[in-house]
Amino acid sequence: MADELTIPLHLAQRLRERGVEFGFGIVGDYALRLFTDLEQDGFHIKVTADEQGAAFAADAYARLRGLGVVAVTYGVGGLKIANTVAGAWAEQVPLLVISGAPGLRERAGDVMLHHKIKNFDSQLAVFEELTIAQAVLANPAIAADEIDRVIAEVLSEQRPGYLEIPRDMVEVPIAPPRGKLRQHLPIVNEAHLEAAVEDAIDHLRDSESSVMHLGVMAWRRGLGPEVIAAAQWANAPVATSSLSRGVLSERHPLSLGVYMGAVSPAEVVDKVENAATIVSVGVLNTDLTMGAFTAHLDPNRRIDVHDDEVTVGMRTYKEVPLWAFVPALAEAAGKAGLHPLDPISAPMRTRHPFDAQPGKPLSVARFITAIDAHLDERHGLLVDPGECLFASVDLTSPNWCLASAYYATMGYAVPASLGAGLAQPELRPVVLVGDGAFAMTGLEAASVRFHGVKPVIVVLDNEGYGTQRPMMDGSYNDIPHISAEKLPDVFGVGHGWLATTEDELDAALTEAMATDELCIIRAVVPKHDRSPALTRLTDALKKRV
Amino acid sequence: MADELTIPLHLAQRLRERGVEFGFGIVGDYALRLFTDLEQDGFHIKVTADEQGAAFAADAYARLRGLGVVAVTYGVGGLKIANTVAGAWAEQVPLLVISGAPGLRERAGDVMLHHKIKNFDSQLAVFEELTIAQAVLANPAIAADEIDRVIAEVLSEQRPGYLEIPRDMVEVPIAPPRGKLRQHLPIVNEAHLEAAVEDAIDHLRDSESSVMHLGVMAWRRGLGPEVIAAAQWANAPVATSSLSRGVLSERHPLSLGVYMGAVSPAEVVDKVENAATIVSVGVLNTDLTMGAFTAHLDPNRRIDVHDDEVTVGMRTYKEVPLWAFVPALAEAAGKAGLHPLDPISAPMRTRHPFDAQPGKPLSVARFITAIDAHLDERHGLLVDPGECLFASVDLTSPNWCLASAYYATMGYAVPASLGAGLAQPELRPVVLVGDGAFAMTGLEAASVRFHGVKPVIVVLDNEGYGTQRPMMDGSYNDIPHISAEKLPDVFGVGHGWLATTEDELDAALTEAMATDELCIIRAVVPKHDRSPALTRLTDALKKRV
Repeated sequence: MADELTIPLHLAQRLRERGVEFGFGIVGDYALRLFTDLEQDGFHIKVTADEQGAAFAADAYARLRGLGVVAVTYGVGGLKIANTVAGAWAEQVPLLVISGAPGLRERAGDVMLHHKIKNFDSQLAVFEELTIAQAVLANPAIAADEIDRVIAEVLSEQRPGYLEIPRDMVEVPIAPPRGKLRQHLPIVNEAHLEAAVEDAIDHLRDSESSVMHLGVMAWRRGLGPEVIAAAQWANAPVATSSLSRGVLSERHPLSLGVYMGAVSPAEVVDKVENAATIVSVGVLNTDLTMGAFTAHLDPNRRIDVHDDEVTVGMRTYKEVPLWAFVPALAEAAGKAGLHPLDPISAPMRTRHPFDAQPGKPLSVARFITAIDAHLDERHGLLVDPGECLFASVDLTSPNWCLASAYYATMGYAVPASLGAGLAQPELRPVVLVGDGAFAMTGLEAASVRFHGVKPVIVVLDNEGYGTQRPMMDGSYNDIPHISAEKLPDVFGVGHGWLATTEDELDAALTEAMATDELCIIRAVVPKHDRSPALTRLTDALKKRV
Repeated sequence: MADELTIPLHLAQRLRERGVEFGFGIVGDYALRLFTDLEQDGFHIKVTADEQGAAFAADAYARLRGLGVVAVTYGVGGLKIANTVAGAWAEQVPLLVISGAPGLRERAGDVMLHHKIKNFDSQLAVFEELTIAQAVLANPAIAADEIDRVIAEVLSEQRPGYLEIPRDMVEVPIAPPRGKLRQHLPIVNEAHLEAAVEDAIDHLRDSESSVMHLGVMAWRRGLGPEVIAAAQWANAPVATSSLSRGVLSERHPLSLGVYMGAVSPAEVVDKVENAATIVSVGVLNTDLTMGAFTAHLDPNRRIDVHDDEVTVGMRTYKEVPLWAFVPALAEAAGKAGLHPLDPISAPMRTRHPFDAQPGKPLSVARFITAIDAHLDERHGLLVDPGECLFASVDLTSPNWCLASAYYATMGYAVPASLGAGLAQPELRPVVLVGDGAFAMTGLEAASVRFHGVKPVIVVLDNEGYGTQRPMMDGSYNDIPHISAEKLPDVFGVGHGWLATTEDELDAALTEAMATDELCIIRAVVPKHDRSPALTRLTDALKKRV
């Protein structure tokens, strides 16, 4: 007779089916048995320094693998990740929260158990504000179905979900699920689809020049290859958003790099905004990813492909989701014999070599050029909000570049490198993080290494919250000094470098890229220096006034 | 003509009236003008590494000064402190959250602004679950009254409150408040009060032995002196709870130390549980503060003084709040000529000297003896949940001892030392923190020092989550190594010591106590060693099974 089904066993099976090998989290007494049983059932949870770090790691894992799991204890664990889960909502990350909780029997009489908030429903109520689906697994008859419902919603909607498991439910036998776990993609009206594709093809045929602008939902729906095929047939070079750097390599011949309104280099802005046709796929219209709304994308020249509908100029085709439209467009464009783009003559991004000037103090601009020169196809990039996020539009990420690029929560990149490194072990994470963000979660570097991931972490040290100083300056932008390069001594593992000049940075990057170990480089730039990208944004915002 | 009133100006005035000199927080663009104007109006916000740290600092400040303020930006700031605010709810801490927010005008059309969650009400909805009173300051006609309402509720109920300030409201002139800020204490029925006091006096007069058990509400209502007077007249030595270590010094002749059920030393358990009368004042009946409900306090021998009513045996007197009852009891006891206690013959806690054995490896028991020997009246203590919290019932805190002793959120003590140090600059914070908790917020030590506070931080390193190992052990209890004593090198300020033997710890403590600088001592104990307190608890729980 087979083992009886339990909540951890069913969870572990479902996660395995979806290719999720690891979760991230911190245990607590309400979650001890849950963690133990999940591990026995083959699902291992990687411990971080703080729950916030675990959630950031799980978020990165979810972005790269299509589903991520953060496991916590009740209250003190769950509420520590409220912010990260909110970010996953905003940026449409399929992140599953699994929380231990007081047992159903011990809740009787509303007693004051540790980690309790106002009442035993408070944590659930908080997560109702932050997730697409929730379940407290209190009923063995439907627990498996509830798990499937929440995971299916997470996958279907690409939003976070929440499962709460009372500790006395962990080993209770549960009824088997009624069916398979099904992801429900937005529905297709075939007639609308055909009409939308025909309309789009007509539009593209007459178009003198076309570009594609790929947003986060193009990546979330896994449409990289189809999008590249469509772009080639439509003779359309491709820009990404800062949330979707990974749907194709920025060193692909078709890539224009990142379009982020006035933040982007002038050549990118020119090619995107002045194209006769702009095919926008799964783009979220957010202030930050649109360069503080400095983007100028004429609606009359746009084909807007959303997660559930397509708009060509003034005509909207309902029930035409991007997951169905993009492959159909690629196929139709091929048959229609549109002028296919020759990748060789495509407008490849220029990469500048880094000729380090010995003894020359670093600037943010030169810092970015140096990183770009040292990045290669073995690397995955992670950048933290602030100057690193802005500055990074001037470099070409060979694979993906993960960032909290809309929600903009600081401290993301260091712990996210753990999730990224375990999601794609063949790529080494390279982290660009400001000194302000590093202070938030920098100790997580020890956890990252503890689980075998060996990132190159480059701390851009401009003495505080540099992005804010041009807006308004005060002592609230000043933070204590941290010699991040000395942390390997504290951890007893890894190597560190301090770089204040161009040649020091060049040498440090050369050594770090060749060293299979945790590497931390602190790159010091002048306090009031700004990246070219941030300067472009500031100039554009001045014009607006 | 006087300056027009604005939200920051009114806030700064109200906070000054209540003796709140500083807030703690991290800025962001939605809060830049708010922080700037608060500073101009004389209210300065101390920056920490992460918002979590700011909220812990503000929580400690609130515990010592009667009101604390944490100021954050929207979403990425606000939600990072959800856990800390939940802890303030659970432990009745008067903590005020001030959050910047997108401007009212820019919210039009529900646009996707950075840091936004599901909608612009999401953060408010989360804080409705975690606070006693909330206001979004959107109306200049009532903004001042709304501020007063929220602060008054925070003080009256001793729970956290939430103020959200859209950034385009910061410099708008507002109407003056309708009146003064009033704290509403629970109401008194004078006849009930008189009867309750008489009943209690009769009870105490006939009692062969009495003790007082002071809980957190006795401290929150500021009743230290009145409680000591009542205890003296009632011939009742005093125990505190682990949440109220500070209502009187544990080196006061009347002090029995901390009563925490089976966690406490046998002599304390004996004196409290076997007293003929137990006067319990403002005690919360929580699992953790009652030693996993191992407390045995016979209801028939108890006089229970709550925040709003008093129970003597089987008789409850409604509308008799502790703030009115305790002073009345002290006065009546004096007049009644109860057998007043001679402080000289009172059962003072025994403090053991620490005779360090050279070369002898440290144990948790000896660690605590060493700390107790080195603590004196110049120190305020902070302990983190886990082994440090349990173990610390065996030492006598000369002033207060702050801890997340019921909600039990880890990572509290290091950042809380910033708030404590600024709240009472005459006392030097001494922090006891486990290696697991230190990994969460240890980098905040740099922020603490940055603002001029110079704690002695002692990291009890037992290689992971030691408190959990006896319950259930697995790889989830293992964490990466951090040589905390080397962090002063990383910060460029402070001193560090590694102590693995008794004499090393003794020497390190001697030097640290004599050094007016940030001091970090890492005290290494065996992985599976436990404190006497945790052993007592485990033994008691075994008996229960």
